[in-house]
Amino acid sequence: MVRYDVIIIGAGPAGLSAALYAGRAGFNTLVLERMVLGGRVILTEKIENYPGIDKGILSTDLIKNMEVQIRQFDNVDILFEDVKAVDFNLKKVFTEKNYYEAEGFIIAVGAKEKRLNVKGEKEFLGKGVSYCAICDGPLYKNKEVVVVGGGDSAVEEALYLSRFCSKVRLIHRRDKFRASRILQERLQKTSNVEQILNSIILEIKGDKQVKEVLIKDVISEDLQSIQCSGVFIYVGIEPNTDFLKGLINMDEYGFILTDENMATSCEAVFACGDCRRKSLYQIITACAEGAIALNSLQGYLLKK
Amino acid sequence: MVRYDVIIIGAGPAGLSAALYAGRAGFNTLVLERMVLGGRVILTEKIENYPGIDKGILSTDLIKNMEVQIRQFDNVDILFEDVKAVDFNLKKVFTEKNYYEAEGFIIAVGAKEKRLNVKGEKEFLGKGVSYCAICDGPLYKNKEVVVVGGGDSAVEEALYLSRFCSKVRLIHRRDKFRASRILQERLQKTSNVEQILNSIILEIKGDKQVKEVLIKDVISEDLQSIQCSGVFIYVGIEPNTDFLKGLINMDEYGFILTDENMATSCEAVFACGDCRRKSLYQIITACAEGAIALNSLQGYLLKK
Repeated sequence: MVRYDVIIIGAGPAGLSAALYAGRAGFNTLVLERMVLGGRVILTEKIENYPGIDKGILSTDLIKNMEVQIRQFDNVDILFEDVKAVDFNLKKVFTEKNYYEAEGFIIAVGAKEKRLNVKGEKEFLGKGVSYCAICDGPLYKNKEVVVVGGGDSAVEEALYLSRFCSKVRLIHRRDKFRASRILQERLQKTSNVEQILNSIILEIKGDKQVKEVLIKDVISEDLQSIQCSGVFIYVGIEPNTDFLKGLINMDEYGFILTDENMATSCEAVFACGDCRRKSLYQIITACAEGAIALNSLQGYLLKK
Repeated sequence: MVRYDVIIIGAGPAGLSAALYAGRAGFNTLVLERMVLGGRVILTEKIENYPGIDKGILSTDLIKNMEVQIRQFDNVDILFEDVKAVDFNLKKVFTEKNYYEAEGFIIAVGAKEKRLNVKGEKEFLGKGVSYCAICDGPLYKNKEVVVVGGGDSAVEEALYLSRFCSKVRLIHRRDKFRASRILQERLQKTSNVEQILNSIILEIKGDKQVKEVLIKDVISEDLQSIQCSGVFIYVGIEPNTDFLKGLINMDEYGFILTDENMATSCEAVFACGDCRRKSLYQIITACAEGAIALNSLQGYLLKK
């Protein structure tokens, strides 16, 4: 067992940003990551909307840069271990092989996109299949795309894409959208968005890039092929917070509730990034939240 | 008069990030800046704590990159005009020479550091004089520095600097600190911070870099020279929000009050960056807030 000032759980942009600020602040810091640095950022090939990097950057390079920034600090350790349990009262974190103690904790465990679980979805990820219109949409300027989903996010993103895509088809498995009425009204007025209700995607097809989707009308059972260059899937994300259930306040979907300073319902525990409930899930917001979480934890430790 | 979807007032990191997101979202956007792109960022020579830029970057280069990102969008105009008045009911912004209308507004006017107004302060800015320990502190590792101020910020930053500077002298003009008692207790326990009360700085001296400060004891009127490599001034910042007084909810210092989605008390008006009341004033947080402000404005316009 090693005792740290700060333990950061998760090494996506939020956790890495918190680690950078922790390194600079001189805290003895442990970053625990179960898979690879970067989290779901590496699902997007190229990042074009990170302010200050003008030519765009490969997601792997952005994460590599963050790692280089952190590795310069002797006071930050990164270990690839999967956190299995925490005890915030005892100030302990348990991985599959060890446990660690700290004065304070930053939870940056991220979220995963809900999948459609259809053929071609995994194969064409980053080659037409995307879970982020804000990230990847501009690559489809003047092209035809498909959006899947029926909630606010799906409708908002279909409207977003309609600004520059030549045609957007919004496919939803039910007979009406869950999205707020006001958004749906807006949808009606947008001529280049076609609504395809009662329909599910059976398969995503293409060669190097997505070329078409095969959909089925769940009432008539008719099959139909739709030509498209992109498939944007908005059936939700789910936070990786199962191991925290019952320990910390969350919303009904498992997103951690914090105040604007990233403080959670537990003393000395802060949360940042995609595992938080918030309005905008972006790399730039995750990084900012990581910095804020560390700053708030620093304030807490200074006053302890 | 030209009518826009969005007007962004101020082109520091918050405003530029909002403009980037506005460009990508396809809004006809006007950015109004009274001086130069970048705002008070350009007061710091080198940025080392911006996540994802591993070797550090000159502040001027970071801002140039942001400008390049924005200039690729035909739907974003940048005009160098000083906003003199706004009428959010009429949805108009008035500059010294023109007026502009928009559906929504993002206020990103920033803040300025309160100055000591002593000899040498302006001359050595970026050459030993700094207003940001988090930004510039690590440049003074194992060196002696002076911190000026008596509030929470000054004491917190003195404690921060004490982690890696060999000696920190905290100079305050009054006989006690305004900082919270708990922070002051922490200060007492920190052996390499010397408190110098009842004292003011008369002059900052050096050659290419700061070498010493001349201080006066306001009770005994004794003068004293203190050798130091850096002078960190924490006598507060003040938001550039004078032209908004009475139009929008602010705190007693003029910082704009928003919710976590950057919404202000005025419909269709959002605020981001250093002009907001918040806990952490950093480039990364300003950029995130710019993105959030635009996203919230987009949500508002979609539902209108």
